[in-house]
Amino acid sequence: MKQSELFTKTLREAPKDEESKNASLLIRGGFIYKVMAGAYAFLPLGLRVFRKLEEIIREEMTSIGAEEILMTSLQPKANWETTGRWLDFDALFKIKSQISEIDYALAPTHEEELTPIAKKHIVSYRDLPKAVFQIQNKFRDEKRAKAGLLRGREFFMKDLYSFHADAADLDRYYDKVSKTYMKIWKRVGLGKITYFTWASGGTFSKYSHEFQTLSESGEDTIYVCEKCRVAVNEEIIAEQRECPICGGREFSKKKSIEVGNIFKLGVKFSKPFELRYKDKSGREIEVQMGCYGIGLNRVMGTIADTSNDEKGLIWPEEVAPYKFHLLEFKKGSAAKIYKRMLEDGLEVLYDDRDVSPGEKLADADLIGIPYRLIVSEKTGKKIELKKRTDKKTTLVNYEYLRKI
Amino acid sequence: MKQSELFTKTLREAPKDEESKNASLLIRGGFIYKVMAGAYAFLPLGLRVFRKLEEIIREEMTSIGAEEILMTSLQPKANWETTGRWLDFDALFKIKSQISEIDYALAPTHEEELTPIAKKHIVSYRDLPKAVFQIQNKFRDEKRAKAGLLRGREFFMKDLYSFHADAADLDRYYDKVSKTYMKIWKRVGLGKITYFTWASGGTFSKYSHEFQTLSESGEDTIYVCEKCRVAVNEEIIAEQRECPICGGREFSKKKSIEVGNIFKLGVKFSKPFELRYKDKSGREIEVQMGCYGIGLNRVMGTIADTSNDEKGLIWPEEVAPYKFHLLEFKKGSAAKIYKRMLEDGLEVLYDDRDVSPGEKLADADLIGIPYRLIVSEKTGKKIELKKRTDKKTTLVNYEYLRKI
Repeated sequence: MKQSELFTKTLREAPKDEESKNASLLIRGGFIYKVMAGAYAFLPLGLRVFRKLEEIIREEMTSIGAEEILMTSLQPKANWETTGRWLDFDALFKIKSQISEIDYALAPTHEEELTPIAKKHIVSYRDLPKAVFQIQNKFRDEKRAKAGLLRGREFFMKDLYSFHADAADLDRYYDKVSKTYMKIWKRVGLGKITYFTWASGGTFSKYSHEFQTLSESGEDTIYVCEKCRVAVNEEIIAEQRECPICGGREFSKKKSIEVGNIFKLGVKFSKPFELRYKDKSGREIEVQMGCYGIGLNRVMGTIADTSNDEKGLIWPEEVAPYKFHLLEFKKGSAAKIYKRMLEDGLEVLYDDRDVSPGEKLADADLIGIPYRLIVSEKTGKKIELKKRTDKKTTLVNYEYLRKI
Repeated sequence: MKQSELFTKTLREAPKDEESKNASLLIRGGFIYKVMAGAYAFLPLGLRVFRKLEEIIREEMTSIGAEEILMTSLQPKANWETTGRWLDFDALFKIKSQISEIDYALAPTHEEELTPIAKKHIVSYRDLPKAVFQIQNKFRDEKRAKAGLLRGREFFMKDLYSFHADAADLDRYYDKVSKTYMKIWKRVGLGKITYFTWASGGTFSKYSHEFQTLSESGEDTIYVCEKCRVAVNEEIIAEQRECPICGGREFSKKKSIEVGNIFKLGVKFSKPFELRYKDKSGREIEVQMGCYGIGLNRVMGTIADTSNDEKGLIWPEEVAPYKFHLLEFKKGSAAKIYKRMLEDGLEVLYDDRDVSPGEKLADADLIGIPYRLIVSEKTGKKIELKKRTDKKTTLVNYEYLRKI
């Protein structure tokens, strides 16, 4: 992509109406636009990061046998009344039609839509287990939305739902999803700072679990056990004051962001919607369900929050909008290399703009693409290469770029 | 994909609460689920068709220099007041927050969000022309929604917006988009029955244009000139009774579905949002805009409506959920061929279920995958191949499949 043709420009100043570091950096780099508090549009560079996150998550979901679907945001009030959540779900957006008597929910989660769908297709023990997921926009009527991409009124979620014949099969799949989530954090560059965190139990078990990423902007707090490095949440500390794994009592307290969650729903939704299957003897049994979420906006915000310096963003390679940022200081001097890179299938943003070298260098640091390339009179036939994370530059041949 | 593991089953009976032929066929085949009137979820097979449509449209948009973005559905009331459409847009869903004093629009179209975004990034004549598009869910408060995927309360749109320095440049881009749309209809299998249709003019020109696909389920009527085969809409017939191209007066009247629309917006939105650019002399001039839509649900519904027989759907190859449907009549007898097809990267749905040959054959016709393959005792080492559109079968070697 030629930067001269890019829809967006970078902004010199931090936006005044933005309190969060993640959104402030992403707005300055031209990745997102703040539509209002809690709602951000993805601009071309931001959408490229979003698509890479989406593809990594999709691959990992497919690898554990989940099939992709795409549900609606508009849902009938009746489904939410069936579960009692029309009144009980605090952040539910409710819509009254202006031209008919219909009331709708604007979905913050999809159990109320998916359980009736599953009822059409799950009939017998032969139809189990099943797992489906979607990557779709969600809505929450949040009172305050000040944390940028971390807490939105509209945001994208990957939501996975699983269906099982019994609790043991649900347990096995829950563990599989947990391991897959840890792979996802690693692939998006958050592996080293994300903890599988033990939390107080839900309805079905002594413990539940969260995925928490260390960040000073985090709204949560976790406690990392000094002895075995397992993380636990505040409730466990308050209740039992010891590590559920090693019994240790020394913890270091850290701020963190919840990047993913997993729940054993049991029969919470299959009961009201009467989602049952026939076992081998023909007996009708309620289906066991699990649900597993990852907020894509939140993951992007967490990466921005935790991977930056005073000059701007520092994208992990797997989710960077482009791998290379090619800068020229004399009009057209990098045009041939750009063309060759495109032919070789290398992902490159080419700064061919009529602006000063200083502005190009500052923008490259702000946008945060992993490898900066400079072609100038000084570099001759070579190319100056600098990693966004390094201070030093090296001169390399073109061939070297294909091996990085 | 093994059909035994597929999330969905086919339905023998047409759903009772569905009046439209397109949705009825798609529900029976397990492509979609009716959440309520005007809102359908895409199930695995349906999502595969949706993704193919999406990818064709994305490729064609990129080919005319449009950059992809992704805007929000939740929009501030203030933006819609700026254009006067908070009160004037009939089908606008309005949301009142339950926990704050905020009012939102649930977007049926995105000029109110995009024009302010463009204002941040379009400043000078050097920033023009620009074009951006998204593929995103839209909402309309429709009084009646009985036409299945043809008229929804929630549906996916590709919406493209272009920005120009003057009307002549807008005209050129408008023509380019028109040609690209015709390519899209061809690629999705609607080329032969879709007409670039002349309609009565908007604010800026004597004529406007629509894209109309012939279908008995269509809610529109077009008139095809017998002399030059150009299509015109009802208004032109009422106003001038002659073909705007050849002056002919003999028309054949046909029912049709509007699958795409294109508009020259001029300064309709740049005026209220003060979207201006500085020309070479520093003078501030309002940006000329165009907008161009394609409804993806509607295109899928139109294909279902126009490409079927009494046995079920007939997918055009480019948008079929899979290219091959592999059937076995004895457990495991096609397992090796399936494995080989996967290794060769062929797209195949493998009916490995424990059901009768009759049920498999009926389901294959209902689902409508282009090439049906049968392995049985009769076929020996060969494979029986049948096109969904043909009656006759042929015996082929495996190698032949790779050449289709």
